[in-house]
Amino acid sequence: MTADPAAGKLPVALDAMGGDHGAAPNVDGAVQAARAGVSVLLVGHRVALHAELGKHAGSAGLPIEVVDAPDVIGMDEHASDVRRRTGASISVATRLVKEGRACAVVSMGHSGATMASALLTLGRVRGVERPAILTHLPARGGFTTLLDVGANADVKASYYAQWAQLATVYLRVVEDREAPSVGLLSIGEEDHKGSALVLEAHGLLRALHGQGIHFHGNVEGRDIFLNTTDIVVTDGFTGNVVLKLAEGEAKVLFGWVREALTSSLKSKLGALLVRGSLRGLAERMDPSTYGASLLIGVRGLAFIGHGSADARAVKNALLRAQRAHEANLIPRLEAAFAEQAQGTAPA
Amino acid sequence: MTADPAAGKLPVALDAMGGDHGAAPNVDGAVQAARAGVSVLLVGHRVALHAELGKHAGSAGLPIEVVDAPDVIGMDEHASDVRRRTGASISVATRLVKEGRACAVVSMGHSGATMASALLTLGRVRGVERPAILTHLPARGGFTTLLDVGANADVKASYYAQWAQLATVYLRVVEDREAPSVGLLSIGEEDHKGSALVLEAHGLLRALHGQGIHFHGNVEGRDIFLNTTDIVVTDGFTGNVVLKLAEGEAKVLFGWVREALTSSLKSKLGALLVRGSLRGLAERMDPSTYGASLLIGVRGLAFIGHGSADARAVKNALLRAQRAHEANLIPRLEAAFAEQAQGTAPA
Repeated sequence: MTADPAAGKLPVALDAMGGDHGAAPNVDGAVQAARAGVSVLLVGHRVALHAELGKHAGSAGLPIEVVDAPDVIGMDEHASDVRRRTGASISVATRLVKEGRACAVVSMGHSGATMASALLTLGRVRGVERPAILTHLPARGGFTTLLDVGANADVKASYYAQWAQLATVYLRVVEDREAPSVGLLSIGEEDHKGSALVLEAHGLLRALHGQGIHFHGNVEGRDIFLNTTDIVVTDGFTGNVVLKLAEGEAKVLFGWVREALTSSLKSKLGALLVRGSLRGLAERMDPSTYGASLLIGVRGLAFIGHGSADARAVKNALLRAQRAHEANLIPRLEAAFAEQAQGTAPA
Repeated sequence: MTADPAAGKLPVALDAMGGDHGAAPNVDGAVQAARAGVSVLLVGHRVALHAELGKHAGSAGLPIEVVDAPDVIGMDEHASDVRRRTGASISVATRLVKEGRACAVVSMGHSGATMASALLTLGRVRGVERPAILTHLPARGGFTTLLDVGANADVKASYYAQWAQLATVYLRVVEDREAPSVGLLSIGEEDHKGSALVLEAHGLLRALHGQGIHFHGNVEGRDIFLNTTDIVVTDGFTGNVVLKLAEGEAKVLFGWVREALTSSLKSKLGALLVRGSLRGLAERMDPSTYGASLLIGVRGLAFIGHGSADARAVKNALLRAQRAHEANLIPRLEAAFAEQAQGTAPA
């Protein structure tokens, strides 16, 4: 068990070569996280990483260690390559978790490779058929937790039920939400609305209500931003479309606001006055705020970030990883599913 | 054939009792459309509609006629009721199209009932397995045409191909786009990304490229707002989630902008100066701008609007309906599918 409390303050393993911008934002983010108290194992080309670390004055005294990995899986390579490329940074980083030398793995690199590596090396929580990618979307009054946002394009009804349970334990344990509500993404609030698969999932979720989850019922696309429920479960195809649409829309809408603010002399003057207030808003919508998404359902902590992640995203991902570890997320997930298998409701 | 050019200036039949707010916004919108040159048949309770018309000074001289329908299908009733409730306003309005007395039916009422009524009464364009709901979403540089946004929660790969063809003819004929591009909504740009069903649809669309459609390939959620392609095809489940998410996100984001603009004295002062410029933006995002969505694939023009539609939405829907009629949309759709059946590319 990698997340055993007895293991104390284990470092987080960072695939320091992953992402569109290579080592620089990873090392920068690791230095920032280390300054905030997170121990980090930087996994990748030893020489390159030491060189990058050297650019950060005072980094020598931080809890950062370099672990050599001679190979990197590029963003355009096949996820399945992970199996034979044991020297790739993601493979080495995940193995550190498996061996109990790190409490979590974080990668801004090839998502498919990270998922494959986690699944192959760490295995699944018993009772979970397929891990899902869990993320947070900014919403009215806070954030909505959404899963699956892309691990499973083709799903079975039973996955939705398991994902609802995983996310419930996650919010309870990591975010201190006492009884998080679960919504099933559909095309109408009424119970009978949806695809055949969603109707089947609805039945399973309904049966679990009060048995470890609080099932609100169906929610619609708009509810994700309205924060109608704490958790929204959906298949990995719809969830991925939702995630990318939400990001794309925010980008385009804020671009339009920016255009409108500079469309006349009068509005340009006004823009100078409102700039400060709008900056906070842009930050709220910035994906870097959450850092990375959690691959939930594997037997170990694995976080998957945007290839375009900046240092802030890397830092926040490392902080989130440490928090999930300190909250004993993996043992708590295993306990919940074990209790359920014995016919009792998860704690 | 209801949209025959020889039929001349046929009126549009409006289900004047449909929607959350009853007759008032329907009659108001009809009066506005009539002033803009659209002939309207107001279908519903004769007495109520005349009373409502009486509130509009000068409406007596407009090309508006009341057609009595004693019954209304409420928003919470079953769509399947349409079959036996032949006196319902939507049933009467759709029959006017079938009988060649109206060129199109527009309803802000029960969407399911409108779809059922159109399908039962008007039938399908030969070669189309299932009609889809086609709508426009505001996007960078204009709008993106999206279908299906909710008629079919469960789909087959062949539907995507037919919908791509329908939307292509629509944009060519009604919006004068010479060679509209088609994107298939998926979870990665690469051809091999997506669900099993989407991969199958990808193959069919690829085979149609150059044979009546211009297939761009896969697009992602963000591309809808980036306007990467003119048309985005997807199943009615994903499309409905997308539509409602897009609306919900715009609402929440603009709410945040409004909050930010009033968060300090300085920003309040600035807000006074930028207010005018931002108002144009809000209008751009307003669903009323497009009025209603088109149920494409039925053998007649049927438009379905929001239950919450205001007079402006009703007016714009009536204008769109008339424009689609004048462009001979239905005969052009039938011709395109007939030519394809003979093995030649649609015009």
